[in-house]
Amino acid sequence: MSWAFWPIVAIVVSFGAFAVGFYFYQYVKKLPSANQDIDRFGTLIREGSMAFLKTETRVLSVFVFVTAILIVLFVPPIWQTSSITGNILMGVCYVFGAVFSGMAGLVGMQVATVANVKTASAAQRGLTHAYRAGFRGGAVMGLAIVGSCLLGSSIIYLVFPNNPSFLLAFSFGASSLALFAKAGGGIFTKTADIAADLTGKMELGIPEDDPRNPAVIADNVGDNVGDVAGMGADLFDSNVAAIAAALILALDLNQAPFIFMASAMGLLASIIGVFFSNVKEGGSPGRALNRGTYITTGVFLILTLACSFIFQFELRLWGAAMIGLLAGTIIGISSEYFTSDEGKRVQAVARISQQGPAFTILSGFSYGLLSSFPSLIGIAGAALGAYKICEPLGTEYALYGIALSAVGMLSIIGMITANDAYGPIVDNARGLSEMSGLGEEVVRVTDELDAAGNTAKAITKGFSIGAAGLTVIALLAAYRETLTNILGADIITGFDILDPLVFFGMLVGVGVPAVFSAMLMMGVNRNADRLVGEIHRQFKEIPGLKEGKPGVEPDYNRCIDMATVGALKELLPAGLMAIGATLLVGFIGGVYAIAGYLAGNIMSGVLLALLMSNAGGMWDNAKKYVEAGHFGGKGSTAHKATIIGDTVGDPFKDTAGPSINTQITVVSLISSLAAGLFAAFSLFG
Amino acid sequence: MSWAFWPIVAIVVSFGAFAVGFYFYQYVKKLPSANQDIDRFGTLIREGSMAFLKTETRVLSVFVFVTAILIVLFVPPIWQTSSITGNILMGVCYVFGAVFSGMAGLVGMQVATVANVKTASAAQRGLTHAYRAGFRGGAVMGLAIVGSCLLGSSIIYLVFPNNPSFLLAFSFGASSLALFAKAGGGIFTKTADIAADLTGKMELGIPEDDPRNPAVIADNVGDNVGDVAGMGADLFDSNVAAIAAALILALDLNQAPFIFMASAMGLLASIIGVFFSNVKEGGSPGRALNRGTYITTGVFLILTLACSFIFQFELRLWGAAMIGLLAGTIIGISSEYFTSDEGKRVQAVARISQQGPAFTILSGFSYGLLSSFPSLIGIAGAALGAYKICEPLGTEYALYGIALSAVGMLSIIGMITANDAYGPIVDNARGLSEMSGLGEEVVRVTDELDAAGNTAKAITKGFSIGAAGLTVIALLAAYRETLTNILGADIITGFDILDPLVFFGMLVGVGVPAVFSAMLMMGVNRNADRLVGEIHRQFKEIPGLKEGKPGVEPDYNRCIDMATVGALKELLPAGLMAIGATLLVGFIGGVYAIAGYLAGNIMSGVLLALLMSNAGGMWDNAKKYVEAGHFGGKGSTAHKATIIGDTVGDPFKDTAGPSINTQITVVSLISSLAAGLFAAFSLFG
Repeated sequence: MSWAFWPIVAIVVSFGAFAVGFYFYQYVKKLPSANQDIDRFGTLIREGSMAFLKTETRVLSVFVFVTAILIVLFVPPIWQTSSITGNILMGVCYVFGAVFSGMAGLVGMQVATVANVKTASAAQRGLTHAYRAGFRGGAVMGLAIVGSCLLGSSIIYLVFPNNPSFLLAFSFGASSLALFAKAGGGIFTKTADIAADLTGKMELGIPEDDPRNPAVIADNVGDNVGDVAGMGADLFDSNVAAIAAALILALDLNQAPFIFMASAMGLLASIIGVFFSNVKEGGSPGRALNRGTYITTGVFLILTLACSFIFQFELRLWGAAMIGLLAGTIIGISSEYFTSDEGKRVQAVARISQQGPAFTILSGFSYGLLSSFPSLIGIAGAALGAYKICEPLGTEYALYGIALSAVGMLSIIGMITANDAYGPIVDNARGLSEMSGLGEEVVRVTDELDAAGNTAKAITKGFSIGAAGLTVIALLAAYRETLTNILGADIITGFDILDPLVFFGMLVGVGVPAVFSAMLMMGVNRNADRLVGEIHRQFKEIPGLKEGKPGVEPDYNRCIDMATVGALKELLPAGLMAIGATLLVGFIGGVYAIAGYLAGNIMSGVLLALLMSNAGGMWDNAKKYVEAGHFGGKGSTAHKATIIGDTVGDPFKDTAGPSINTQITVVSLISSLAAGLFAAFSLFG
Repeated sequence: MSWAFWPIVAIVVSFGAFAVGFYFYQYVKKLPSANQDIDRFGTLIREGSMAFLKTETRVLSVFVFVTAILIVLFVPPIWQTSSITGNILMGVCYVFGAVFSGMAGLVGMQVATVANVKTASAAQRGLTHAYRAGFRGGAVMGLAIVGSCLLGSSIIYLVFPNNPSFLLAFSFGASSLALFAKAGGGIFTKTADIAADLTGKMELGIPEDDPRNPAVIADNVGDNVGDVAGMGADLFDSNVAAIAAALILALDLNQAPFIFMASAMGLLASIIGVFFSNVKEGGSPGRALNRGTYITTGVFLILTLACSFIFQFELRLWGAAMIGLLAGTIIGISSEYFTSDEGKRVQAVARISQQGPAFTILSGFSYGLLSSFPSLIGIAGAALGAYKICEPLGTEYALYGIALSAVGMLSIIGMITANDAYGPIVDNARGLSEMSGLGEEVVRVTDELDAAGNTAKAITKGFSIGAAGLTVIALLAAYRETLTNILGADIITGFDILDPLVFFGMLVGVGVPAVFSAMLMMGVNRNADRLVGEIHRQFKEIPGLKEGKPGVEPDYNRCIDMATVGALKELLPAGLMAIGATLLVGFIGGVYAIAGYLAGNIMSGVLLALLMSNAGGMWDNAKKYVEAGHFGGKGSTAHKATIIGDTVGDPFKDTAGPSINTQITVVSLISSLAAGLFAAFSLFG
């Protein structure tokens, strides 16, 4: 069979995904709106989200342009190549990756900001309709992301079948965009959330989604730019990176077709799965989300096994992919175990909160630390298991097995993203139904949808952190492969942890995710502080606003503008620090230091990401648990304590935590791309 | 010159240290007490501290006994050796290490619980006298710890000059005791502190050291068992481990004398330095503590340089030791920079606390993450620098250089410990002067002494974490050396981070410090909860206690008993988990997995330890800064917020953070000791 067969199948499946996505979009778009108010607020949210994306794109296009120039000049150094064409093509692939990733996020957000209004409106007709509107809106995002990822990767591979560094450049484009999209969106969303809560709920005592609050639209915009566009870019980037790493390792083994087969079948399974995610009146939306995932997983398992038999792939490769999928499930389940509000851990945090906020923080933080362990073991076990399964085929196959476990974990990402994007859509729907006065029954329905979204979110985060972990191991192997190609097979025998350069890199690498997340959280603090000032100004200077005089409206757009500009200002230093530290370590310690640096980076990155995501999730759900009437309910000591916990948890789980895995991927890709430079120019290497 | 020359010099210097320590003890003991009350409270604290130590010793002697038996049976496996004598001697060395470490802690605590009364009493005569009493009390501890460490190591080396594994066993004895002493003391002290604050300051609104509070004596006992005995055991253990690791690497190079020379000169310099640590009336105790350290450092530098010239040691070895000392200073200064209450960071935390406790937590946590970076760079730079300096002497010398940088960093530990033990003594003195009504002027003097103690504590923690970091790198090298001796030089070529077993171990190793610290913090929570119940019971059941009726006294001892029993109950699972995880990884993944495990363990251990220690220190000092009248002073929003921060920070900085480096050392030593076992029996290795 032609080497191009499976990439072409992947392209066909992507177009299938686009078609189903388009069909869902049309379905959602045609649903009726409940009233004029909801349309007006929906438009405000959509325009705000687009305004953020526009400003962000303007800033990032400068960054992408500069980076593209640097790639053309230095990868490889222009004075060392005979022809500049390769360099230019590298730059083009990089831009291509950034654009693809941005586009997928844009499409997802476009749909999400329509689906929120329709979901709220459909909630008037009951749970079944509302769920379908919310879920299909999310599914568009999932299908668009994975479809464009597969389309882009396949095209690049078909054009440059023998040089995976072009796919690395494509992947780096996607990652560098994701780094800023995730971090920028994360800062924006928590800035708006905290500022709105501080001024509205705490100072004035008005409800969460009261339209008098100037930051209320910004808060809803935040859900879209952080959780939809940001998370989409992040998953796109993980997926491409996993494919790129696997392709580099597959090249000498002639095993690339398996990667495209697994990814294409995963997307196909997701396309089938999304049609089965429905809920009856009185049913459980959480269970419906899970059912979709189970069906997708089952279909994927059968399809890949069938293809392996029919097209005579090594069954051990299939085994490696399945181990990854299993590890992803374990990580997801353990995240759910720690963060589910029906779980004992969350209830324990809620209980001890009766003694005050210090205990909320201490217990949530402790559980967060504990929660990292099963996931670390899951990643470690998957890497070891995939290696051991493929080892009988040869040592080279063993490392390829690890890369496949990452591909396997990410294979059903279409479905996972659909579940994830469902979250902010129904969250927005809840806000919209309150703002536009759709009545208590509608709010109750959207509340029920929302609770299921929170758990889905925790599982997705677990998946994306786990996948990043496995991908970076694979990228580390790809990095060595790249080095071997540059320097010859005899030079690089391994990266010994007792080599002081490796150790040096490792210790610096450990620090980078810590500094990165600290900078993001401090950015949220500073930005929220500025926004609170603006809200106070509006309440003071706009007569009748505080009292809710009819016809008086706050200046929503100014708040959105401020949060946008502030978020972009805060995210650039953090992103540049991570990139700069990588280059510094490379130019000081050389290629060995970089290997250690990547290992250290992934170690502390995975630990901190899991700690922050899970602790944040626990605090959020502990608050909800108390608000549901336990331990004194609203207004009690426990409630006040859990509100403080939730405020701490917000930038943990929605800004810093989920940005870390993008940071890990970005530095891994830079390292591989700049491997030649580090090999040629370094102080100690 | 005889190989035994320098170990004998070291023994002579240790006896010199004991003599000066004894002189200081007599000096402090002969000082007058202010009144009968202070003697009575002092006796209560002393008896409480001793009661804790007694119970702890009873529990730990069972552990030490069982471990000694296991060592005799399995190190090496008894059925593989021709004679059992070596195994029995290993067991004896292990017990010897545990006893030495325990004794040094006991002596230090004995003196500290006398010096606290005398310092408070001397404060009536002014700052100069009070400082001298407090500092000399602390100096006894410093000299006893380092003297007995040097004495023990030298004796073991003289008896078994060619087999460093006996020193490893001695070191493991010291470490396993330190693990429990530090963690147990840390749980005890924060249990008592939190319970006393919750019931006294928060519920009843009585002052911190009010004698009506049943937990007030336990709180003061905590300072002694946690900060004096625990920290002493910890520093003893770091010092022995550094010497042991260096000796293993020195053996083939015939360079052992340098280690004993450097350690002996360090102790001599400390003996000289402690005489120069004095303060004039109106002077600054903080500066006096620093002056002592500077003089010690200078004297050490000159003495070692002179000895290197006179006795013709390689100057590069001296250079490696100095790099370690420099790194220690950098880590200490960066800890001070982040945690000093005169610093901008602490003031920033205090300022943002005006917006509520969530911001206190977020900003302190963010700064804590940031603060880890300079220290990580310091450790990384020291390791790389020491390696590069010694590399021209040969590759084997290069790793030895890293071990020497750890020895160098710890060389002035006598002085550092003196400064550190000064802290809890003057803290106790402050409490005693309040309890026994010595008047405002005395409280002011002890307050001034206390503030200087806090900064000293931050520096010591930086030193001990940094030293643990470098020591474990050296232990990792020693581990490879041990393996090479067991398996032959050709088998172990290195620990490649791309070896899946190494990677597996690394990921598990990363998780262990996280789980360990979570278990300790949860232990504090649970134990404090029980103690609060007991305090409530006493207030309810002892008539007249709450009202402060003369002659009515709470049952202090019951609180001490409960905190003791609870602390021991909580620490065992955490310690056994760390040891068990190490054995599990070794028996599953074999010697390669263990190498990765140690690397992962040190990475996340250093990161978490620095984060927790520094964040905790910042919150403590932010509270003090607000209490000094800034941002609204006592009773303000900022004050309430910083109290919550401080409560979160307490188990961070005094329980979990400082226990982690002991945990790192313990697992490194077990790994080296059990290397043969792992090589022989493992699932995948």
